Amino acid sequence: MATTEDINHEITQQSALLADLRSQNADATAIDEAKKRLGELKKSLAAIGAAGGSKDAAKKKERLLLKTAKGTLDYGPGEMFCRAHIENIVRDVFTTYGGSCLDTPVFERKDILAGKYGEDAKLIYDLKDQGGEQLALRYDHTVPLARYLAMAGATIQTKIWQVGKVYRRDNPVMSKGRMREFLQADFDMSGVWDPMIPDAEIVSLLCTILTRLDVGEFTIKINHRKILDGIFEVCGVPADKIRTISSAVDKLDKLPWLEVKKEMTEEKGLEPGVADKIGEYVKHKGGPSLLSQLKADEVLMANASAKQGILDMELLFTLLDAYKVLDKISFDLSLARGLDYYTGIIYEAIVEASAPPGFTTNPAVSAESAAPAPKKKSSKKTKTEDGEDEDEIDESQVGVGSIAAGGRYDNLVALFTSAAAGEGKKAPTLPCIGVSIGLDRIFAIVWPKWAEKGMRNKDTMVYVMAVGDGLLEERVRLVQELREAGIKTDFLAKKKPKLPAQFAAGERDEVPFAILVGGDELKEGLVVVKEQKWEIQDGKKVKIQSTDQGTKVKREELVDWLKQTDAIRNWSSGRLI
Amino acid sequence: MATTEDINHEITQQSALLADLRSQNADATAIDEAKKRLGELKKSLAAIGAAGGSKDAAKKKERLLLKTAKGTLDYGPGEMFCRAHIENIVRDVFTTYGGSCLDTPVFERKDILAGKYGEDAKLIYDLKDQGGEQLALRYDHTVPLARYLAMAGATIQTKIWQVGKVYRRDNPVMSKGRMREFLQADFDMSGVWDPMIPDAEIVSLLCTILTRLDVGEFTIKINHRKILDGIFEVCGVPADKIRTISSAVDKLDKLPWLEVKKEMTEEKGLEPGVADKIGEYVKHKGGPSLLSQLKADEVLMANASAKQGILDMELLFTLLDAYKVLDKISFDLSLARGLDYYTGIIYEAIVEASAPPGFTTNPAVSAESAAPAPKKKSSKKTKTEDGEDEDEIDESQVGVGSIAAGGRYDNLVALFTSAAAGEGKKAPTLPCIGVSIGLDRIFAIVWPKWAEKGMRNKDTMVYVMAVGDGLLEERVRLVQELREAGIKTDFLAKKKPKLPAQFAAGERDEVPFAILVGGDELKEGLVVVKEQKWEIQDGKKVKIQSTDQGTKVKREELVDWLKQTDAIRNWSSGRLI
Repeated sequence: MATTEDINHEITQQSALLADLRSQNADATAIDEAKKRLGELKKSLAAIGAAGGSKDAAKKKERLLLKTAKGTLDYGPGEMFCRAHIENIVRDVFTTYGGSCLDTPVFERKDILAGKYGEDAKLIYDLKDQGGEQLALRYDHTVPLARYLAMAGATIQTKIWQVGKVYRRDNPVMSKGRMREFLQADFDMSGVWDPMIPDAEIVSLLCTILTRLDVGEFTIKINHRKILDGIFEVCGVPADKIRTISSAVDKLDKLPWLEVKKEMTEEKGLEPGVADKIGEYVKHKGGPSLLSQLKADEVLMANASAKQGILDMELLFTLLDAYKVLDKISFDLSLARGLDYYTGIIYEAIVEASAPPGFTTNPAVSAESAAPAPKKKSSKKTKTEDGEDEDEIDESQVGVGSIAAGGRYDNLVALFTSAAAGEGKKAPTLPCIGVSIGLDRIFAIVWPKWAEKGMRNKDTMVYVMAVGDGLLEERVRLVQELREAGIKTDFLAKKKPKLPAQFAAGERDEVPFAILVGGDELKEGLVVVKEQKWEIQDGKKVKIQSTDQGTKVKREELVDWLKQTDAIRNWSSGRLI
Repeated sequence: MATTEDINHEITQQSALLADLRSQNADATAIDEAKKRLGELKKSLAAIGAAGGSKDAAKKKERLLLKTAKGTLDYGPGEMFCRAHIENIVRDVFTTYGGSCLDTPVFERKDILAGKYGEDAKLIYDLKDQGGEQLALRYDHTVPLARYLAMAGATIQTKIWQVGKVYRRDNPVMSKGRMREFLQADFDMSGVWDPMIPDAEIVSLLCTILTRLDVGEFTIKINHRKILDGIFEVCGVPADKIRTISSAVDKLDKLPWLEVKKEMTEEKGLEPGVADKIGEYVKHKGGPSLLSQLKADEVLMANASAKQGILDMELLFTLLDAYKVLDKISFDLSLARGLDYYTGIIYEAIVEASAPPGFTTNPAVSAESAAPAPKKKSSKKTKTEDGEDEDEIDESQVGVGSIAAGGRYDNLVALFTSAAAGEGKKAPTLPCIGVSIGLDRIFAIVWPKWAEKGMRNKDTMVYVMAVGDGLLEERVRLVQELREAGIKTDFLAKKKPKLPAQFAAGERDEVPFAILVGGDELKEGLVVVKEQKWEIQDGKKVKIQSTDQGTKVKREELVDWLKQTDAIRNWSSGRLI
């Protein structure tokens, strides 16, 4: 049965589709159809409202809902062209840094995922028990990688990258790229290396990727689990409360200090004096000078864990200087990261769009001055038609969040190796460090800019057209010759198309060359090549009108002629106009 | 609890992993570890056998099984390098033919998939009901595409390609690329075009892809649903038996005629005389001459459906001649294809490896002479530990099957559009035609050849090494300069590595250039470049020993110097040595 929520979702999807069709300059009929359907959906919504959502809705019981599952989207041609551009940059940097690709299945045996995600385990998608193994969709790439490494042998040294979708049954915020199905790109290094060298490689890799992608200014917040643990010990947090207090600290990018303190003391039973001491430490952010400040803190340096962490950070900064990325780094004592398995440095990348409105990402601003937390539009849980509990979220009040994050996890692989070896057997550890890049969040930042610039959305270079009587087989033969030569070529799949229809089709693809076959030129072994150019006028892309009659080119010289044009020589995926 | 079957599966996976490590010339320690683990697994298996699979197994109850889900595999670095090469060719041809990319979610609302796959619906993976929508993993790309097109508007003209994994809970035959999770690449054309032009585009596209991939000789078997339906009508098959008799005919590539006839008559109640008439028709295979033969068949030409199909095929052959792919085509009246939704031409691509042993793929050989069906190793169903029924399959007796298949489906999109419009509403049809290419099956054919040729498995071009005292920061700076210039570069993540260890690491990656930093050259602003080459000796790849002392290059000229070398200019992914 179609509910208000269902139809609202359909309307969102249909609007996105219409926008995509428009950005592709799709066929007018297709756009009209999409508009018509959007109109119908809005009418349905009004009808349900009028009927109080009961009688009229019941009448529509048999109507199939044409939509994707909650928290997921189709990506159409224009969007995929942009996404491919993002993915290509990421893959290129991954291999430039010496990475090798790994691909694991989209689902894992349930016991592989069990006990790895703490309280977030409730977000795991389970498969139905249809007789056989208990399976669940992967939640990230880190745990499948750790399983793979455990199978490959405990001492293996690798640089491995993965690009693929992961799944979390969380409340989606679609416009900010917070999805239930989302694309993550991971790079991990495993093996025993000298201290902080892999750590610096990964941080530098992340800086290179974010610099090459058009995400604007970014900051990499870095902290060290050992420093954080040392601070907690020094401030007097009982050992059994360290992880839960760490989780509270992690909320400082979303909540003001006073609320976090309240959580520590009222919910988690910490002494207010201890909380205040923590508050003094975690407000610090900065660069190498913060490091000097910590080194001068005798109390902290007397703690073995904190000392180790501080010395690690010192070495890391030296290396990051050689990598020339120190200006991107903010050493941030309030960064804690949720996952339990981190053992060393942790980091996350933020951009302007990361923060919700009213927050600032300026690392110089201390935690206390942050604005109050964004309120949910409605705090009551609503039950959907499908029986799913959900919070209504006001998307305008949500930021994109961090666009990449990761850290060192030295014990995860050994957890698998020893569990597989059986009771009581202890496996050697395999130190690992890695980063996950949220490609949907990056897409949410890059796509509006891309659309604004009027980027092409496919890379067809030539459109072959007939002047006169169709010449279907003649066109097909020329199209195939060009395609065999590696030139991306298309034609109108009509027997006797009119010339304006062929030009219109070529223009929809923004093809730089129209090649005309027919007439006297055909008899003389010639074709006519017309170069086509576009420009942005009033925010819309239009073809530049030209009185150019085209260039006559000998048929057998056509491939060479095309290959030496600027348009084909300079073309690379995603080039403007 | 680890059962014999579980451990056997682990052994299979571990062996594959060991082979992959070897093909990558992985670190000796890693190979030893993998070997050790394989040995342990074999010991466990023996132990279970000795204990009658009871007592000893119970003792291991708590042991975690380190394996992927049944019917799925990890693809490691060497394999992924080869798979990326296959995917790149496929994507390049897709865009060369004017295709745009679409990406749909890996799961769909269950009611979108319902009623589309006939009796194969039992193979769909359902997600667990965790409160919310009923979801299932996609079974193919065709149905999600049809849903997308129905949402986009009923008349949209598109050329769309998709590459992604699809899911079927079938009995896997891993060595032949028959998996539960497998990668399919689809290309589809939608919209009203002139007859047979999109059909010829798709067949030509498939021929181009299979020619560019190293799969050996291939044949595209083509038939037409309307001809087949006409034949059934002319032979006297009752209208309500046409689809089920069509399914029986579809088995002629696996079963001899007499068994198929038996199915038609004994199981499906067809008159033996009618079956014999069908048998006369469906044994025909050939090219345009078969078309002339059918056109001369007055009985068949009097049937409206058959006549339409034959005229379509005639036009198709004319176009395929212009596409220059007629020599790849076998017009095969025994091809029926399982899915119900096909309405026009249907096709599948086969290679030598497609057939099980004892079968021939020579289209000239008629169906009667085919060898008897391969027997299953054991005909009894076995119940696994997980409670799943399964047949034991003798993998040596199974072929790869068709490596690509598809056809015209003119009614599928309208099925969605009208179901969404509500009861009784009829939607306009959106004619579609498409092809699905089974990339895992292609990988199963290409990978052994690739491994045999000793192809590289990553594209790192330069390894930067220190002579003397480590020079970590100096190495990092040079590495980053080269990476910024787009040269894929790596180094050993050690503070003071020995030179032989650095050479060994570079050689594992088969890097063509070793660059040495240090000594007097460093002071003079010079580095030493040593080019490294490999050759195949006795089926194994070895570095060619050379007494070359290397070339001294000015540090600031290094990037330009490298970029004009043959090794870097000619390198393209997957180039031999």
